[in-house]
Amino acid sequence: MATSEASVTRIMVAVNESTIRGYPHASISSRGAFEWTLQKIVRSNAAGFKLLFLHVQVPDEDGFDDMDSIYASPEDFKNMKNRDRARGLHLLEFFVTRCHEIGVACESWIKKGDPKEVICHEVKRIQPDLLVVGSRGLGPFQRVFVGTVSEFCVKHAECPVVTIKRRSDETPQDPVDD
Amino acid sequence: MATSEASVTRIMVAVNESTIRGYPHASISSRGAFEWTLQKIVRSNAAGFKLLFLHVQVPDEDGFDDMDSIYASPEDFKNMKNRDRARGLHLLEFFVTRCHEIGVACESWIKKGDPKEVICHEVKRIQPDLLVVGSRGLGPFQRVFVGTVSEFCVKHAECPVVTIKRRSDETPQDPVDD
Repeated sequence: MATSEASVTRIMVAVNESTIRGYPHASISSRGAFEWTLQKIVRSNAAGFKLLFLHVQVPDEDGFDDMDSIYASPEDFKNMKNRDRARGLHLLEFFVTRCHEIGVACESWIKKGDPKEVICHEVKRIQPDLLVVGSRGLGPFQRVFVGTVSEFCVKHAECPVVTIKRRSDETPQDPVDD
Repeated sequence: MATSEASVTRIMVAVNESTIRGYPHASISSRGAFEWTLQKIVRSNAAGFKLLFLHVQVPDEDGFDDMDSIYASPEDFKNMKNRDRARGLHLLEFFVTRCHEIGVACESWIKKGDPKEVICHEVKRIQPDLLVVGSRGLGPFQRVFVGTVSEFCVKHAECPVVTIKRRSDETPQDPVDD
């Protein structure tokens, strides 16, 4: 074999929650990126790869959900933080469980902040061989207002990046969702 | 196995000649993209992948080399075309031979035209699972004048695209070369 098998190929997959499915489900684009990685890259060679799942929680993400909540004590904030943590863990559990079934080594972790900045920061820290990012495949008009994490990562992440666009038959009614 | 093994993963690799090494050698960035694909993606799973090498020849590419040539007959033009064809074949031979050694299935072909346009057109026609493009990793100043094929493909190719930047220790004195 001319190819090096010295160490596994470490693929970082950035994952986030669905914005339209309520309680923590992986977004369509996250699942798309994950499934593409398994089907097209890992294939039957589970031993050759390690997947690194990074979930970045946006601090204000739940602003709307929390409009009806009343924060009257430090305890309330703690509960909210615990709930955020539980959601993030639930999300990562989906991916880790799937990897476990297939026999692919993986790690997963949660960070808070601006997803595009945090992803690039974590790439610098972790130095994966490849970063896989799902994309909603928004048109130019939608992109102006939403901004896309994937475009930022393609430009700024210090490792090869592949963007997996959502299939058109999986696009929700409002394409900005998920 | 949960991953589908129904068909191989088809990876298109866009390759071009070195501009600084004289007679047909693969450019540093082409070789980088190819080696990355083998080492990080294909790994030991040669049977799971098929590599598709596309070499796009720019019609005017040899303008400078041909400054001293005299074209006096239709035969002269035919000779020039044959020479172009020979260079292209020699380039592709390098990649095909390497794949043959490793046991990875491959195909290769030559097209004429504007590389970025032709690559995206061929992606549409061939529908690979992934397009790998080498990049010279030019700074913003250099990019304005040179344009980058990889950026265009990331935006316009109808399949996932990964750009492999040249390693800094492989960058020639003039980074626009190769």
